[in-house]
Formats: sequence, structure tokens, C-alpha cells
Amino acid sequence: MQVAQIVFDQFTDIDVFLAWDLLNRVRRPDFSVRLLGTGSTHVSVSGLRIPMHGSIDEAKDADAVLFASGPATRTLMHDAAYLARFQLDPSRQWIGAMCSGSLLLGALGLLRGKRATTYPTAVEALRGLGVEVVDRPFVVEGHVATAAACLAGIDLASWTIETLLGSEVAAEVIAQIQPVGAAALGRKVA
Amino acid sequence: MQVAQIVFDQFTDIDVFLAWDLLNRVRRPDFSVRLLGTGSTHVSVSGLRIPMHGSIDEAKDADAVLFASGPATRTLMHDAAYLARFQLDPSRQWIGAMCSGSLLLGALGLLRGKRATTYPTAVEALRGLGVEVVDRPFVVEGHVATAAACLAGIDLASWTIETLLGSEVAAEVIAQIQPVGAAALGRKVA
Repeated sequence: MQVAQIVFDQFTDIDVFLAWDLLNRVRRPDFSVRLLGTGSTHVSVSGLRIPMHGSIDEAKDADAVLFASGPATRTLMHDAAYLARFQLDPSRQWIGAMCSGSLLLGALGLLRGKRATTYPTAVEALRGLGVEVVDRPFVVEGHVATAAACLAGIDLASWTIETLLGSEVAAEVIAQIQPVGAAALGRKVA
Repeated sequence: MQVAQIVFDQFTDIDVFLAWDLLNRVRRPDFSVRLLGTGSTHVSVSGLRIPMHGSIDEAKDADAVLFASGPATRTLMHDAAYLARFQLDPSRQWIGAMCSGSLLLGALGLLRGKRATTYPTAVEALRGLGVEVVDRPFVVEGHVATAAACLAGIDLASWTIETLLGSEVAAEVIAQIQPVGAAALGRKVA
């Protein structure tokens, strides 16, 4: 089982790394997480350069595909050559986006006539793609999920793990990151 | 004003990246965040290799120094040569740690006779360093702060920004990452 995270330059750090950390807490030999981009590395909006595991052309083979956010979504959403490389299939794949990453889902036609959420600064652009934008942290429509503002990344990662592996595995992962004193804790060396 | 984040191999991804993202949302020309390690790159526990901005020898010049967590803290806490490179001064610097990073603060003598929190799996080792371990997500003792479990990283980053720049700047940053529909939102392109 494979999760692909779609990354591009000027990505919002936490929108990639929160899901990345949580998904990597699933310790199963048949489960992997890969960062896919258009280059061999991409640089975050905070200036951190990270290596990719593969190309966005491979997203079509993943079981779940999660789009990052960042200012670049405003230009990539109009880049037909970029969009054409995804070849996603929402009948077979689980697809999600953080914040303004929803603009890419919209541009790919995955949200037409559907409800979705996004970051406040992206609401008008998402409406322009025929999407019903709702003021919620996390929205699921069939196989497509959108999360708004960074901490909703926990919902997105949790949804991904739950749809692929079940609610027990998801609960186990989320318990690990709760603050001490706030909940029963998973026991991981951290 | 400079914040140093101390990174080492097998660091817990989110314990570095949550603070990194939040601190980088402070947009002031006199404020910077640097990742310091012993190598030019370090690899997270999830296998992500990231570049460092400098060496741990430079931590003594930062206004705030935040230690990452990860399994390596268990060996680094006994590595006298490693610890000797920090030369931190808690009368002048603000010093914090995530989860098991508190073991390094303890080994540096910064928590002797003080209260601190840590990840459940590190409690016994921290007690062994003469620290009173309390079951709280976030503990401040003078210039030294400890945060337990990943989401308490929000408290640690917020404390750092508030002590260096005031509560208004900290509130502005934290508002940006709240889920949509949950709170008044900062307006950042994300």
C-alpha cells in the first residue's frame, strides 16, 4: 500500500511534514509513503530543501495521493502540462489536499459540484472552479478529502490511514502525538 | 534575533518541523531560525534527509536554542564530547526541548532540581538526571522550557516567539494554523 505526497517549490512546511510524520508512524512492511515532485528536490516556503522519492508521474500508481499547499498552487492550477501528468482515478484512489492544495484538486476536476474546504485566502479561486466551499476544517466527498489550515492535517492523515488500514491503526498513530497529560498515550520511543 | 534548532540523526520529524514552520512565520528582518547539527545534513527517523544551516558549536550565540527529540538522545546524553560543544548560558539564552530532547537539557545540567516534562518512554532516564518529572504537556522553569509529545511543540514555538518578540506576534502566528471554522484566522497565503 502506497501513499504519495505531492510536493512543489514553496510548499508550506507543516502541510507536508505533519502528514509525513503521522503516515510514517504506520509500521507495516506493505505500507510506504513517498514524496513526489517535478524535481529531485523541492524547497519549502521557509527555505528548507528536501529530496523527493519520485516524480508526480507516479502518483497514478499510489493508493492515496495527498497534495501539499503553498503559493505555487495559484500558478500550477493553470498549468495544463503539469496537471496532465497526474492521471488520477478517484474510483480507485483516495485523494486529499491541504489548504490551497484544494485548488489543484479543483483544477483536476475532482471537486466539480462537490463540497470542499480550503484556506481562507483560496476560497474565491476554489469557488471559481465550480466547487461549493464550506467553512469546515475537514470535508470528505466520496474518495476526495480536503483539509483547511495546518492542524487539520491531522484529520487528513488520520483519514488516509483509516481508509487504507482501518480505524484501529489510525487511532494508535494519533494517540502518539497527543500532549502528555491530555490523553492515554501510545508508547513509542520519541 | 536568532533561534537555533538542534538536530541529530533519527530526529522525530514533527518535533523539528512543527517549531520550524511556526518560527518561520515570524516575518521580521532581524529574526532568523537555523538548524544546527554535527553534520551538513541529518536524516529523520522517517528517512528524510535535510540540510543544516550550521554547527552545534554556534548554539552558544543564539538567543533561543530548541532541542529536537528522537532515539539518539539516549546515546547523546552520555556523549561528553558532544555535550561539551554547546556552551549554553541559561542566564542569557532561552532554552527548550521537545519530548526526549529534555534528556539533553538534563545531561547539560540545565534541569537539576527543576521540574520538567518529557515523553513517557524517557521519564525514568530524566529522573535519573535529578529532574522532577511532571505529567504536563509544557513546563517552564525560568529560561528553560520542556514540551511533551509532538503537539506540545505548538506551546514551545509559541513560548519562544513570545519571550523574544512579545505575545502579540506569538498570537498572530498561532492563529494562522488553527483549523478553519475553529477560530478567527490569520490571513496568510498558504
